[in-house]
Amino acid sequence: MTFHVDSETGRLRRVILHRPGLELKRLTPSNKDDLLFDDVLWVRRAQQEHDTFAELLRERGVTVHLFGDLLAEALAIPAARALVLDRVFDEREYGPLATDELRAVFEGLPDAELAEALIGGMTKREYLEAHREPSSVRFHVMAPDDFLLQPLPNHLFTRDTSAWVYDGVAINAMRWPARQRESVHFEAVYGHHPLFAGPGAGAFHRWSEGQGGHPSTIEGGDVLVIGGGAVLVGMSERTTPQAVELLARRLFATGSARTIVALDMPKRRAFMHLDTVLTMVDGETFTQYAGLGMLRSYTIEPGADEGELKVTDHPPEHMHRAIAAALGLDGIRVLTATQDVHAAEREQWDDGCNVLAVEPGVVVTYERNVTTNTYLRRSGFEVLEIPGSELGRGRGGPRCMSCPVERDPV
Amino acid sequence: MTFHVDSETGRLRRVILHRPGLELKRLTPSNKDDLLFDDVLWVRRAQQEHDTFAELLRERGVTVHLFGDLLAEALAIPAARALVLDRVFDEREYGPLATDELRAVFEGLPDAELAEALIGGMTKREYLEAHREPSSVRFHVMAPDDFLLQPLPNHLFTRDTSAWVYDGVAINAMRWPARQRESVHFEAVYGHHPLFAGPGAGAFHRWSEGQGGHPSTIEGGDVLVIGGGAVLVGMSERTTPQAVELLARRLFATGSARTIVALDMPKRRAFMHLDTVLTMVDGETFTQYAGLGMLRSYTIEPGADEGELKVTDHPPEHMHRAIAAALGLDGIRVLTATQDVHAAEREQWDDGCNVLAVEPGVVVTYERNVTTNTYLRRSGFEVLEIPGSELGRGRGGPRCMSCPVERDPV
Amino acid sequence: MTFHVDSETGRLRRVILHRPGLELKRLTPSNKDDLLFDDVLWVRRAQQEHDTFAELLRERGVTVHLFGDLLAEALAIPAARALVLDRVFDEREYGPLATDELRAVFEGLPDAELAEALIGGMTKREYLEAHREPSSVRFHVMAPDDFLLQPLPNHLFTRDTSAWVYDGVAINAMRWPARQRESVHFEAVYGHHPLFAGPGAGAFHRWSEGQGGHPSTIEGGDVLVIGGGAVLVGMSERTTPQAVELLARRLFATGSARTIVALDMPKRRAFMHLDTVLTMVDGETFTQYAGLGMLRSYTIEPGADEGELKVTDHPPEHMHRAIAAALGLDGIRVLTATQDVHAAEREQWDDGCNVLAVEPGVVVTYERNVTTNTYLRRSGFEVLEIPGSELGRGRGGPRCMSCPVERDPV
Amino acid sequence: MTFHVDSETGRLRRVILHRPGLELKRLTPSNKDDLLFDDVLWVRRAQQEHDTFAELLRERGVTVHLFGDLLAEALAIPAARALVLDRVFDEREYGPLATDELRAVFEGLPDAELAEALIGGMTKREYLEAHREPSSVRFHVMAPDDFLLQPLPNHLFTRDTSAWVYDGVAINAMRWPARQRESVHFEAVYGHHPLFAGPGAGAFHRWSEGQGGHPSTIEGGDVLVIGGGAVLVGMSERTTPQAVELLARRLFATGSARTIVALDMPKRRAFMHLDTVLTMVDGETFTQYAGLGMLRSYTIEPGADEGELKVTDHPPEHMHRAIAAALGLDGIRVLTATQDVHAAEREQWDDGCNVLAVEPGVVVTYERNVTTNTYLRRSGFEVLEIPGSELGRGRGGPRCMSCPVERDPV
Repeated sequence: MTFHVDSETGRLRRVILHRPGLELKRLTPSNKDDLLFDDVLWVRRAQQEHDTFAELLRERGVTVHLFGDLLAEALAIPAARALVLDRVFDEREYGPLATDELRAVFEGLPDAELAEALIGGMTKREYLEAHREPSSVRFHVMAPDDFLLQPLPNHLFTRDTSAWVYDGVAINAMRWPARQRESVHFEAVYGHHPLFAGPGAGAFHRWSEGQGGHPSTIEGGDVLVIGGGAVLVGMSERTTPQAVELLARRLFATGSARTIVALDMPKRRAFMHLDTVLTMVDGETFTQYAGLGMLRSYTIEPGADEGELKVTDHPPEHMHRAIAAALGLDGIRVLTATQDVHAAEREQWDDGCNVLAVEPGVVVTYERNVTTNTYLRRSGFEVLEIPGSELGRGRGGPRCMSCPVERDPV
Repeated sequence: MTFHVDSETGRLRRVILHRPGLELKRLTPSNKDDLLFDDVLWVRRAQQEHDTFAELLRERGVTVHLFGDLLAEALAIPAARALVLDRVFDEREYGPLATDELRAVFEGLPDAELAEALIGGMTKREYLEAHREPSSVRFHVMAPDDFLLQPLPNHLFTRDTSAWVYDGVAINAMRWPARQRESVHFEAVYGHHPLFAGPGAGAFHRWSEGQGGHPSTIEGGDVLVIGGGAVLVGMSERTTPQAVELLARRLFATGSARTIVALDMPKRRAFMHLDTVLTMVDGETFTQYAGLGMLRSYTIEPGADEGELKVTDHPPEHMHRAIAAALGLDGIRVLTATQDVHAAEREQWDDGCNVLAVEPGVVVTYERNVTTNTYLRRSGFEVLEIPGSELGRGRGGPRCMSCPVERDPV
Repeated sequence: MTFHVDSETGRLRRVILHRPGLELKRLTPSNKDDLLFDDVLWVRRAQQEHDTFAELLRERGVTVHLFGDLLAEALAIPAARALVLDRVFDEREYGPLATDELRAVFEGLPDAELAEALIGGMTKREYLEAHREPSSVRFHVMAPDDFLLQPLPNHLFTRDTSAWVYDGVAINAMRWPARQRESVHFEAVYGHHPLFAGPGAGAFHRWSEGQGGHPSTIEGGDVLVIGGGAVLVGMSERTTPQAVELLARRLFATGSARTIVALDMPKRRAFMHLDTVLTMVDGETFTQYAGLGMLRSYTIEPGADEGELKVTDHPPEHMHRAIAAALGLDGIRVLTATQDVHAAEREQWDDGCNVLAVEPGVVVTYERNVTTNTYLRRSGFEVLEIPGSELGRGRGGPRCMSCPVERDPV
Repeated sequence: MTFHVDSETGRLRRVILHRPGLELKRLTPSNKDDLLFDDVLWVRRAQQEHDTFAELLRERGVTVHLFGDLLAEALAIPAARALVLDRVFDEREYGPLATDELRAVFEGLPDAELAEALIGGMTKREYLEAHREPSSVRFHVMAPDDFLLQPLPNHLFTRDTSAWVYDGVAINAMRWPARQRESVHFEAVYGHHPLFAGPGAGAFHRWSEGQGGHPSTIEGGDVLVIGGGAVLVGMSERTTPQAVELLARRLFATGSARTIVALDMPKRRAFMHLDTVLTMVDGETFTQYAGLGMLRSYTIEPGADEGELKVTDHPPEHMHRAIAAALGLDGIRVLTATQDVHAAEREQWDDGCNVLAVEPGVVVTYERNVTTNTYLRRSGFEVLEIPGSELGRGRGGPRCMSCPVERDPV
């Protein structure tokens, strides 16, 4: 088996999702902003919605891996377990008086329980239900319901933490503290899980190596594998130009890609990732949020000498032309539903643009984005709707919640 | 027919609800905070949820009046129409160059259309689709999608704008600008609609006269008619002590009530109204949010002389005792589900405490508050669940969304 | 004696200042934002700085009236005292149980003490040092150091609350709650103080009547009497287009002015008032903040019929041309010091543009704005510097701190 | 020469200050919050105030080293220069296309110019005045006045970045990004400057090694060397319990200290560092902010075995007792001026508690804190006042602005 993602809309064969769990029960009105959510979720309903999403993908022939399972299975490998625990239980975080004791306790947990704790977090109170209190200032100062181990509710958005680009994967350095512990989990999975590292697993490249790359951050929601050796990247609040340059150097070194177009996005939460305002519905068609406007763009190509890069700047009005050129097309088709600015802003907020293609012209969307969905259908595309009353509260749609690991070219 | 509300949990006979409409389509990520919402809503789904709520009440024998209909019917009466338009189209708001012209245009609208515009608002662009542009600086400086008439999405929460207390109604002065235009709509309905002001309508008292009372603000979510001539009021971010005193004076003057207990609540949005943290499930039982704690309270009773009031202060630990004394009971029963602080905070946020009783011991709640609902059932109460994935985003539950106008004593 | 302000830069003959006092000692890190200050002040030093300012004006032949004195003298007149106390001690603010008692206590204060309390505020603790506690919920819920009477630290900026325009004065409706009680103090002074209402006082017009005009708000910092019957108004966060139209109607009715140019300013605190970004240094020269840019403008003139107004819109690039036309000039001179954007932003913040002319070409500024002051000198103007380390923390300069009541035309 | 700090109030012999410079001219209303300042400063005046401070210390026999000079002199040493440039010019920050080119340009700067750029920052525009533009996306996306190299205005507060504790120094990991680049400058100075690393320099311990310790952050404002082998540390927004434990282990290993008392402070900016609310005026007397209250505390001592620590918890009411015990005293004297809460909050904000002792009982303070200064004098202490109208805007007083490197025991 080999892993590769050769396009945004070619037949999707294999994907990693994360079923909502304990970590989302942790959200409260007080902590949600720090945890990057706009509202709390009803987790049972969110699970039902997510099950519907997974089932729809399976019905379309996509193999679905659940991240919680992958992580638990990886943690059965001692090297993976050590990798994660070494990273989590660091004296600089837990202090010299508690670190070893805490690490030993977690080391002793069964795989599934450990995976759940790593993703779902643990309060001091929960810890003390089964273990004695370490004699440590770091531990004593915590209130009973403080998190000894922070929950990672954004694991729901498997798109961001790692990103497959052609025949390799980038394990990303994440922008905000609330997500930074996610990366080592993907390091464990890609580096040790039998599916990816077992005897029969095919080789793949690594485009980056995790949180150590900070502050050169990049998140998968900003990375579109638009096909034909081209990549489109949004330089957003979370994705930096230096990370784009570093990605380019790696991709060009192996010949896996031959051009990157980088868009200079507004650095605001409302435009969190490129895929919240611009995604593909087939090999030459994009759906774009009306409020995005045109952006300055930069084309990056291999330079004259080995390891060099060539950068070409484009003014805002040439944005679509620069994307088309990277695709080797005369032009691209850009769909933007006609709505008043209030309605457009609402549907973008509800991930109207955040579609996930399962094959060219067939996309999964949230049912609530009625105007956008109707517009896509009238434009000739097949729209598969999933419920998202709860899921959508994290400001992520079907694309955000999926990490393709095997997808055909268009 | 006479209107009166004699308790919180006696048989509910008649209620005013407001079905979500255009005004909720106006919410966007940019304006939602000013409009006091935490998120945008999918209006079609919100309507379905609301229809379920209304239908459930009808099945329980409650007569449901929809506020949009009441307003449209009231606006058919010239005096009501003049009352509202005079208040809305004021030179201090629209300037000398546009006010008369705008008023004339709205004066010309059919009743239902006018009611929808008053509640749902109107943008400059929408106005210009049918009318010429006034030569006015006030009008010219607006952007096309600015609101010429602000929408009133909080009409959804009919509980707050007016509040029936025994044999009369308070039309409240609202705390925040986003809701202040709501009051005159209730003035029109109670003062002119045939149901309330027609030949066969019974007489009722007025405890206050609308927005003119500002800054003496009070909102119905803070007012619990706990029965037996007693009233419980939360002095919150939105309800002032002076408004409580003014209400007391009116209620005692007619003998409609004989005691008010006022609670000194935290002045924070999370404790928006008393009924988001404390409501009644039968004549002597309350459901209370664990995070509320005990509050200082004040008992207000008629003084020795006509028009005088007697105020008795209580320390926090006597809060429940003060309420019981007002009810003439030895004690009250207070239900608080055992949960960790995170879970409790989540369910309070989702209006877990905001129950609406349809008769003693039978309450309507959101289905998402699983822990609270289960706890209420185990405590012997009947719990009727309604969906609230969309409705709940405005931070209001079944009690917030209902204005009883006829309810029996327990 | 007659009062009139015929220009921005003609010889200044008479002005109202307010010497900092108790009200500025009230500022704390916790309340400063609500009170519209960016920092707390060292009041003793602020008084020294302010004394320097007043002395400089006197040396230049300007008669200086201190607002605290004017208010105390006005309060000696029973009608003025009643006007103010009636407005302040309102049941809607203090409740039926405390209002009369509080009013009686303040009624009994000597003039100077009452003036100081009205401007400087009073805490519950201070009140209780000399008086018994009213039996009132409104009073009981206050913490000991809560303000029974809010301080009015922005009286320092006498420019805003009233504004003389040619042969009359506007007593303004103020935008934010922290300043709204200021207006009635100016009503008392202009309506009852012997200087303005005594036997020998000359007549003057009233362009507006105080806080009752809300939400048609306008503040004097946005009003420039540019001369020759023209007025320049900034429509800012605090000054509304409807207030500009209402002012125009009044000014044109008496023939006191013949044209108003209204600028559509950004609605942000950094551009608080027009005079923080644009002021005059002589009859045809303006100093302008580099970051202001060009703004859309509107010329308002008398219409064909009595009471009508004619509005002409101008695109941003015609802003200076529109001002020149109102002055009957071919063009105006606009001075903007060359600085990098950081430095320019700093000096605007420190009121670099907020100059007060004492005669054509002679302006008072803060000494800290070195670049701007040097630039003005090199441009041929005389610059009189005053210290402003403390005064400037309220984001107001010499123009903001002065209310001219008598100034010649240029 | 040997460096050591044996107390808070023993004779001060040698100190590092930083004279305000270019970095403070960088502050604007827009960037000040990110740069941790509450207001912009008039730099020329701030320099005068700072010169007064330095001169006062010299008059009292203290040797003053200016940090800018120390850094420039250190950068003359190739190893120090390489240390700093390697840390600053990292591909993860500047990208593969610009890093080497930028590093080469800065490598070529004279020592003093390099030191100024490192502290004062550099905009893209300034860079392009002397150098060609690198072909780099990272560089191209910057606006002309964006900072290529961020300024470090908080170098003014030399207290925090490193902290001498008895016979060694901690080079701290700083909490917020705006200060993190400061640490490597102190690494260069202490590791390579002839004063500290030259042939004649005495040996000293290192308690920590700079920014690499993050997230185990600690800042010198939270560290009081109270004498007699005891240390008092505030666990604040910026100082973590794990850092305290790590510091304890180091200090106890060399026998340099024998007990640490850690206070559990509120995690708020207003209580930024312990020395903004509690400092020493002589060997057994503290000045404390009235609003601090009593805090939970933890005594840390060497454990039974090598490398172990013993932790003892104390309830809030024992805070002063725990400090006294660490000092081997029966009790300590705590001075808190009697003021209303508003006044106390004002003087704390203005660093009323942030005194710097030059010998027992003789302290330097800001002149603006009149109440506190008067109170200290009446309590028998000598108070040396310095002006702080500008300096104080960064929320730091004489103690914050000084890093003692040689101080006697009491």
